[in-house]
Amino acid sequence: MSATKHEALHQFVQEIFLNKGFSEDHARISADVLIAADLRGIDSHGVARLSGYVRLIDKGRINPKPKFNFTTRKRTMGNMDADGGIGLVSAHFAMEKAMEMCEEYGSGWVGIQNSNHFGIASYHALRAFEINAVGIAMTNASPLVYPAGGRERMLGTNPICVAIPGNDGREFVLDMATSAAANGKLEIASRSNKEIPEGWVLNADGTSTKDPNALKSGGGLLSLGSDADHGFHKGYGLGAWVDIFSGVLTGANFGPWVPPFVSFLDPATDAPGKGIGHFVGCWSLDGFSDAQTAKNQLDVWIDRFKKSIPANSDQPVIVPGEPERIHENDRKVNGIELNAVVFEDLKTLNQELKLNSKLFV
Amino acid sequence: MSATKHEALHQFVQEIFLNKGFSEDHARISADVLIAADLRGIDSHGVARLSGYVRLIDKGRINPKPKFNFTTRKRTMGNMDADGGIGLVSAHFAMEKAMEMCEEYGSGWVGIQNSNHFGIASYHALRAFEINAVGIAMTNASPLVYPAGGRERMLGTNPICVAIPGNDGREFVLDMATSAAANGKLEIASRSNKEIPEGWVLNADGTSTKDPNALKSGGGLLSLGSDADHGFHKGYGLGAWVDIFSGVLTGANFGPWVPPFVSFLDPATDAPGKGIGHFVGCWSLDGFSDAQTAKNQLDVWIDRFKKSIPANSDQPVIVPGEPERIHENDRKVNGIELNAVVFEDLKTLNQELKLNSKLFV
Repeated sequence: MSATKHEALHQFVQEIFLNKGFSEDHARISADVLIAADLRGIDSHGVARLSGYVRLIDKGRINPKPKFNFTTRKRTMGNMDADGGIGLVSAHFAMEKAMEMCEEYGSGWVGIQNSNHFGIASYHALRAFEINAVGIAMTNASPLVYPAGGRERMLGTNPICVAIPGNDGREFVLDMATSAAANGKLEIASRSNKEIPEGWVLNADGTSTKDPNALKSGGGLLSLGSDADHGFHKGYGLGAWVDIFSGVLTGANFGPWVPPFVSFLDPATDAPGKGIGHFVGCWSLDGFSDAQTAKNQLDVWIDRFKKSIPANSDQPVIVPGEPERIHENDRKVNGIELNAVVFEDLKTLNQELKLNSKLFV
Repeated sequence: MSATKHEALHQFVQEIFLNKGFSEDHARISADVLIAADLRGIDSHGVARLSGYVRLIDKGRINPKPKFNFTTRKRTMGNMDADGGIGLVSAHFAMEKAMEMCEEYGSGWVGIQNSNHFGIASYHALRAFEINAVGIAMTNASPLVYPAGGRERMLGTNPICVAIPGNDGREFVLDMATSAAANGKLEIASRSNKEIPEGWVLNADGTSTKDPNALKSGGGLLSLGSDADHGFHKGYGLGAWVDIFSGVLTGANFGPWVPPFVSFLDPATDAPGKGIGHFVGCWSLDGFSDAQTAKNQLDVWIDRFKKSIPANSDQPVIVPGEPERIHENDRKVNGIELNAVVFEDLKTLNQELKLNSKLFV
């Protein structure tokens, strides 16, 4: 199977969302976010999720025509009710509001409730670069992670992204799940029948395991840090911070009540909030010190870290965000190699919705 | 040795700083921050550090009479030049500025350059509770940590604290170093001649070790996550974020150039910035949604997590900040048990400075 041009893939994704009742704007933005993930090499969050979104729309769990209700609560802080819409779009518009406030006041923040999964956090955080600002984005997600010292699924993999612009496309982009390993890594190991390292997942009884299917069998992911000796209370604390900012404080659900991404599992009936929650915002680079000086200093930082002594002489130290940017530059030119399973999934969607996309000729 | 009343210890610490030329205000605030650490059970950052600060003052590396120069750069963002003063005090006043901006605009942020160590991050973040806001505080620190895949000391243990207020003294307080283990844990193991777990520290050649003295022998601490399999690029990314916000963007030093805390090591002569850097700020709780509703939801969150199934039935799941608050409540009443070495250290200071403190009678 040859690589697919990202423009063609974008076109296809957009058609899917249009077909499902999205507006032109919302379909285009949704495609932007998913294709950004595939371009950046975060394949688990790109078109691989498309059929999952479609099923949630079909089940009435994602509102294809939401009316976003934004409320300015303080001059630099707002709350958005996403009306059950897709997070890909609600977080996009929330970030626009945050950026407007940031341009006027130096920083801007929006919590989003009643939303759905928002794709990769870095798509949203990186938009701050348009106004020379530092972006931040976080979201809670379906519970799969045990808190430190626990054996009940209480948190999602709750990612946090911080994106800081430098000169000439240089940048610092931290985009991390707060669990030790993401679900996708377990699936890869499961498909190839390989053991996983201890410290990724616990069995449902709280015992350690190397079985890549332990999560599917009712176990739970471990927080970053993996065990008490290695600081898993810190990973738990980070995931909890994301949960509280995204859900508890915004009016969305949180903890074990966050609705599942898969359409065959129903949301909790005793939910304390509405939908999934996100938190996005930005700080003006000029607010820290002179923006140009800050960027020049970031260049010094990046150069110094890349030149620091590596543990293995053939593997230089990497700056966070560098691998994703390399992927993006490559895939923009050479196209995106789709996983065979994902390709079949898209092909099925194409047939079901009678879209006759040229992608599958 | 009996427990020492925190008020008496505070008085002694204040006298030390007064003796070293601090103003009444600065001496009192410095004592507040150090005693807060001891009360909260973070003994490594309390009076245990007092003689370290004194030596830095004696060496001219901490300015006892700084003139803080605060500049509003954007309506919600400012920069403070701490004039070589102690971070305990500069971060305190920077947080006041951030709180003022927060009260007017809903959020407020101050980066601090040309400073010194600021004590526990949670002291500064927790002050946001005074205005019903979420507090955040971070600082860079002397390089001891290897970046992911590296074997050169490039980062400090760079802590980050996020403090979120609930009802009736309930709260969420995450205060974490971004390394897998803090230096203090190595020292405890070293004193008792015990091996440490793999994943805390590497030897200078990048190999793994269980030797608690490996750091002293020129090795480096590992970032949270400990190794590639367990996501140490995430811990590295978090520590780097703190470094960039505290140092790179504010005009302070960063990475390997952050001045050492110990007075017998000299700062780098090719330093790209001034002193140590911090970043503090706050978001108004009312900015997310109605503050009272947010607090009520945080209560639901706390209750649900505390009631979640523990891995060991006799060790309930803990909410971040809970152990520190338990310590504080206990030590406020029952006093602080000082480590024998620390007590001797304070006694020596008392003699050297002829303070005749009743603590040592």
